Amino acid sequence: MKFSRLLDKSPNLLITRADESIAAGLKARYPEAEYFALSGAIRIWRDRTMRGKGKLAVVCAGTSDIPVAEEAQVTAEVMGNEVDSIYDVGVAGIHRLMASRERLDAARVIVVAAGMEGALPSVVGGIVSAPVIAVPTSVGYGASFNGLAALLGMLNSCASNVTVVNIDNGFGAGYVASLINRL
Amino acid sequence: MKFSRLLDKSPNLLITRADESIAAGLKARYPEAEYFALSGAIRIWRDRTMRGKGKLAVVCAGTSDIPVAEEAQVTAEVMGNEVDSIYDVGVAGIHRLMASRERLDAARVIVVAAGMEGALPSVVGGIVSAPVIAVPTSVGYGASFNGLAALLGMLNSCASNVTVVNIDNGFGAGYVASLINRL
Amino acid sequence: MKFSRLLDKSPNLLITRADESIAAGLKARYPEAEYFALSGAIRIWRDRTMRGKGKLAVVCAGTSDIPVAEEAQVTAEVMGNEVDSIYDVGVAGIHRLMASRERLDAARVIVVAAGMEGALPSVVGGIVSAPVIAVPTSVGYGASFNGLAALLGMLNSCASNVTVVNIDNGFGAGYVASLINRL
Amino acid sequence: MKFSRLLDKSPNLLITRADESIAAGLKARYPEAEYFALSGAIRIWRDRTMRGKGKLAVVCAGTSDIPVAEEAQVTAEVMGNEVDSIYDVGVAGIHRLMASRERLDAARVIVVAAGMEGALPSVVGGIVSAPVIAVPTSVGYGASFNGLAALLGMLNSCASNVTVVNIDNGFGAGYVASLINRL
Amino acid sequence: MKFSRLLDKSPNLLITRADESIAAGLKARYPEAEYFALSGAIRIWRDRTMRGKGKLAVVCAGTSDIPVAEEAQVTAEVMGNEVDSIYDVGVAGIHRLMASRERLDAARVIVVAAGMEGALPSVVGGIVSAPVIAVPTSVGYGASFNGLAALLGMLNSCASNVTVVNIDNGFGAGYVASLINRL
Amino acid sequence: MKFSRLLDKSPNLLITRADESIAAGLKARYPEAEYFALSGAIRIWRDRTMRGKGKLAVVCAGTSDIPVAEEAQVTAEVMGNEVDSIYDVGVAGIHRLMASRERLDAARVIVVAAGMEGALPSVVGGIVSAPVIAVPTSVGYGASFNGLAALLGMLNSCASNVTVVNIDNGFGAGYVASLINRL
Amino acid sequence: MKFSRLLDKSPNLLITRADESIAAGLKARYPEAEYFALSGAIRIWRDRTMRGKGKLAVVCAGTSDIPVAEEAQVTAEVMGNEVDSIYDVGVAGIHRLMASRERLDAARVIVVAAGMEGALPSVVGGIVSAPVIAVPTSVGYGASFNGLAALLGMLNSCASNVTVVNIDNGFGAGYVASLINRL
Amino acid sequence: MKFSRLLDKSPNLLITRADESIAAGLKARYPEAEYFALSGAIRIWRDRTMRGKGKLAVVCAGTSDIPVAEEAQVTAEVMGNEVDSIYDVGVAGIHRLMASRERLDAARVIVVAAGMEGALPSVVGGIVSAPVIAVPTSVGYGASFNGLAALLGMLNSCASNVTVVNIDNGFGAGYVASLINRL
Repeated sequence: MKFSRLLDKSPNLLITRADESIAAGLKARYPEAEYFALSGAIRIWRDRTMRGKGKLAVVCAGTSDIPVAEEAQVTAEVMGNEVDSIYDVGVAGIHRLMASRERLDAARVIVVAAGMEGALPSVVGGIVSAPVIAVPTSVGYGASFNGLAALLGMLNSCASNVTVVNIDNGFGAGYVASLINRL
Repeated sequence: MKFSRLLDKSPNLLITRADESIAAGLKARYPEAEYFALSGAIRIWRDRTMRGKGKLAVVCAGTSDIPVAEEAQVTAEVMGNEVDSIYDVGVAGIHRLMASRERLDAARVIVVAAGMEGALPSVVGGIVSAPVIAVPTSVGYGASFNGLAALLGMLNSCASNVTVVNIDNGFGAGYVASLINRL
Repeated sequence: MKFSRLLDKSPNLLITRADESIAAGLKARYPEAEYFALSGAIRIWRDRTMRGKGKLAVVCAGTSDIPVAEEAQVTAEVMGNEVDSIYDVGVAGIHRLMASRERLDAARVIVVAAGMEGALPSVVGGIVSAPVIAVPTSVGYGASFNGLAALLGMLNSCASNVTVVNIDNGFGAGYVASLINRL
Repeated sequence: MKFSRLLDKSPNLLITRADESIAAGLKARYPEAEYFALSGAIRIWRDRTMRGKGKLAVVCAGTSDIPVAEEAQVTAEVMGNEVDSIYDVGVAGIHRLMASRERLDAARVIVVAAGMEGALPSVVGGIVSAPVIAVPTSVGYGASFNGLAALLGMLNSCASNVTVVNIDNGFGAGYVASLINRL
Repeated sequence: MKFSRLLDKSPNLLITRADESIAAGLKARYPEAEYFALSGAIRIWRDRTMRGKGKLAVVCAGTSDIPVAEEAQVTAEVMGNEVDSIYDVGVAGIHRLMASRERLDAARVIVVAAGMEGALPSVVGGIVSAPVIAVPTSVGYGASFNGLAALLGMLNSCASNVTVVNIDNGFGAGYVASLINRL
Repeated sequence: MKFSRLLDKSPNLLITRADESIAAGLKARYPEAEYFALSGAIRIWRDRTMRGKGKLAVVCAGTSDIPVAEEAQVTAEVMGNEVDSIYDVGVAGIHRLMASRERLDAARVIVVAAGMEGALPSVVGGIVSAPVIAVPTSVGYGASFNGLAALLGMLNSCASNVTVVNIDNGFGAGYVASLINRL
Repeated sequence: MKFSRLLDKSPNLLITRADESIAAGLKARYPEAEYFALSGAIRIWRDRTMRGKGKLAVVCAGTSDIPVAEEAQVTAEVMGNEVDSIYDVGVAGIHRLMASRERLDAARVIVVAAGMEGALPSVVGGIVSAPVIAVPTSVGYGASFNGLAALLGMLNSCASNVTVVNIDNGFGAGYVASLINRL
Repeated sequence: MKFSRLLDKSPNLLITRADESIAAGLKARYPEAEYFALSGAIRIWRDRTMRGKGKLAVVCAGTSDIPVAEEAQVTAEVMGNEVDSIYDVGVAGIHRLMASRERLDAARVIVVAAGMEGALPSVVGGIVSAPVIAVPTSVGYGASFNGLAALLGMLNSCASNVTVVNIDNGFGAGYVASLINRL
């Protein structure tokens, strides 16, 4: 589905889930516009003031989850946050996640995107004491039911510091994480 | 269903969803134990240090949602937060909510509990710029499907500052709100 | 899906969800035929007798809901009603809705179309005492499940003056509202 | 589930889904209070002014649907409507329904309660041109899923004059029908 | 979805849900092959012995249900039954159905195809005492959930002589009806 | 759930899903009344004329399915059919089913009750050429979802001679089978 | 729900989900019978021959999952396996699981029981190379939907060595694990 | 959906669900690469050491299930197993399955792929005593809900030696079966 969201805290601009032709049109007028092909985000990032008080981490489980993670990262950056992106650290290779432990501990708030069984936010939530924003992704097939399995998993997380946004809602996760990091 | 959760940041203690007999037993040993009959929470609150940096609001839609809101409030208090509870301000009487606008604006983070259509977090989220933790409650009947309607509503909130926890999970909402308020 | 419904209270005609080629064919024969591109409605409106006793309002939450609202409006008009359309007044910007309060109060019956969390009918229903016909739209993604979230929300509305029609059924909402306005 | 709703347009009072003990308590204080055992409604009906402009019909499919129909009837009456109740006219005995045709035609607005396959509103909606408020009931077993089958059936009604309220929501149906009948 | 089923009681042949190119290829080799464009059935009907003991009726609710009804009819015919097809007699126009009463009474077994709310089998089942095979169709939109609403409605039919086959399974309905008519 | 159905083709009587106290009351008045404890059926079977043309088989998968099978059997018998009951022949012990092959072949119509995965009707349907009425039972736990798994399995049967009734609807299966056997 | 399964490879016996009174009755006759109160299993374990070739591990996430894990363990033992039970090692405390790594590596086949988000099998599956039998448990509330969330999570596991059994089916998991360990 | 999985226990390689163009590209570089058009698997199978201790059977119900079965077979082979593929032995033709009994008995572990009602694993599981890995396929239409019916059926199998993987997950089934056959 086509989807478009604007974040026009001027002088910055963010459009999400745009296709390449929209990006090309915008770039023609605003040469500084960036296009993020995986997530379809377009960003004009003129005011780069840091508004977040600390670092914000964006974590994702598999390479297929990167589009959603990227949407969260691009959103958080344009809202004035330093973002540490920790990608491809899914729970079936727990050592890769554990190797990122210091980076996770350094974050004031963490966005975690995962599809399939959506288990990563629970594990991350158990490691850190910061708030974790979980984003289920529609990555998967069959009984993933387009992200429903991951969504239910995250809502039932046994880690108490996890809250959840809609399936594939990288924008919302990045937005809320930014609000929290500004506190 | 019976459900029990402990938060033993000693010297404080929190047990959720306990019945009166458990409360009575605990009170016999710890006279300072409080029992909150609506939510079934038992609290021993010795260390009352304020850890939250500002005020935290707990809002609920109808009187039937108070047990879940109370669980959030009791949790947030025992974790060291000043809590402003704004109850019975459901969307069908929008003026009551609007009358609480200043109190909402004064909060650094807001927990909103609502059953039935679960619309309140969207409206609150549109009014304030603080992060909103939405808790769907199982209040309702028929097509509420024990809170599913409210849960889906909240996940699809058109307000970007809303994240969601499990149905009736007042504890989780209060817990995450506390983490955020400590930042 | 292709869908077609006729309302041939001659000498008027209404076709819904038609594509541009059907409209072009019809216009060739009936130059007075109007085509509404957003909703795909085609209307031949010869007999413009007002049959409704008062004003009928059609309200929608976001710009993406306009196609469904337009279908309701076009239907209500061709059935002889004066329609006041109040668009883009979603619950996350409650002030825009409140600014329309007088227009809402002036309506004998109100159609409200909303997707995502579908909260608007509850808020409108709480403001007015007229009957409200709620139309869930399939606008949304992820856990909106093609309008299911909005549908369930509306069925569980805490406002007692709300009834509901099928997802995206702007025609039905406009039709029933017309029947009511004729009383 | 316990459920309670008040309609206190004084000097009248309506409580729904109350058990006998509540009714007994109320009757002790207000001897004029009526208790409707099937639906659990309690009514104090002092002001019997007719506010509805015409007759309102309440129709139900089987005897098991009477509690919900009764709730609608009691609500509509206390709100000032003359109600014609046409019970046990389910679609599997279509002649009984057809025999009531004149009474149906005489109504300005019709409430139809039905469980199981919930087909009755479509048939009634096809017979009359008045607005029909359909109430799915939780009557049924197995694949009725507590009224879901009837709810879906009514939402997909091929009759354009049908709108729907929540499962077992006789109160809501009677309430909206009253609003319409007052127009 | 592509779907193919063969019924090769030689010397007859039936293929279901084939597209026009397959039909063209087959017709080139077997000039007697018939192609039914609505349902996509291809039939070679050489042995036209009547095997059914009486007449079999195929009934459908709306014109959109004809493809499924046609599949049932073509199947029943090639299996040796005289079929009376009674189309477009949906429940919202009950008089059209009642006008067909004698034809319904004349059938030994009846197939009823209907989408949307799927109410027709209940009404037919109440009129006749013959076995009724109900086929839900995927006709509808929104809360029809691709035929689920009709399927649930038919499974909950208040008429005791109704059994149900899979959504859009005209073949199966025609097949079973044929078996029954042979008894 | 309490459920009651009457079949009063006088002078016979059938009540389904009655408890022992109802049976005792009825037996006091009608000493010939039989009570079937597993299914809760009460039967007064005075007119024992055989109306069915041949034998009718009632098959069930496991001992837990016997209540539903018994309801079908009792119904079919009181409607004038000779019934061969073949119980406890579930698909995980296919040899027991195969050992009953001749009895299955001897039946003009077969009722098959099964819970859990509901696979038995497909296997029986593949063995015989008679019509098979499948009754899903609510036997199972977890992902059986109270008979939904069996219901879906039966609706998707790869055997073309299978039709389906509601979960636990032994009465309906026996009723339809009787109609068919009378042809 | 009451549930009973027998494994009478004499001279051993296993009954699952029995209550204490059944256990008492059996113990009166067979003093060697053991009753496992958490899972409700009764075991008579005379022939203690080891049939499994190596060690089998039974792992569970939280203390609430122990009943299901115990059912698996009791089953595997009575079928002749040495079982290492590793309980309360849920993913929110990943260090406890990692501390059990050697014991996990020592197992030829592993049963993992988990409720709520059901993430544990994925993490265990990523650590070991042995086959993992995942058992979702009905532990949880709200959006766990009685184990559905855990079930879907396990079916979508990103670890390729995971297979799944029904919700709460500790018996099945222990049974299959035993078959595998005998190879 | 596009899907890709690598199994690069060098010097072998397996890619699943690739289209022909990817296969062509790979074949240009590695002439020994095989492309399996039905399942979309690409295999480079240099090291053909047998690692499985015995034979592994892959069984499927209908010809439409072969793509999933083929994925399992190709996976199992490249992991070093001798595979006996027994295709098109669905439960509606039980004699074909029974004719394969010796081959089934000869297998140490069996993968069974089936769509529609997904009954085959239960029947196979009842015949053999080896572990059975059931793979639901998305073959079917209507109430198969893209494999959900088959998935639920398999999870509720009355045969105790059955475990289940995700819908269409032939790779996972072949992978686990290989692990088991190596024991």
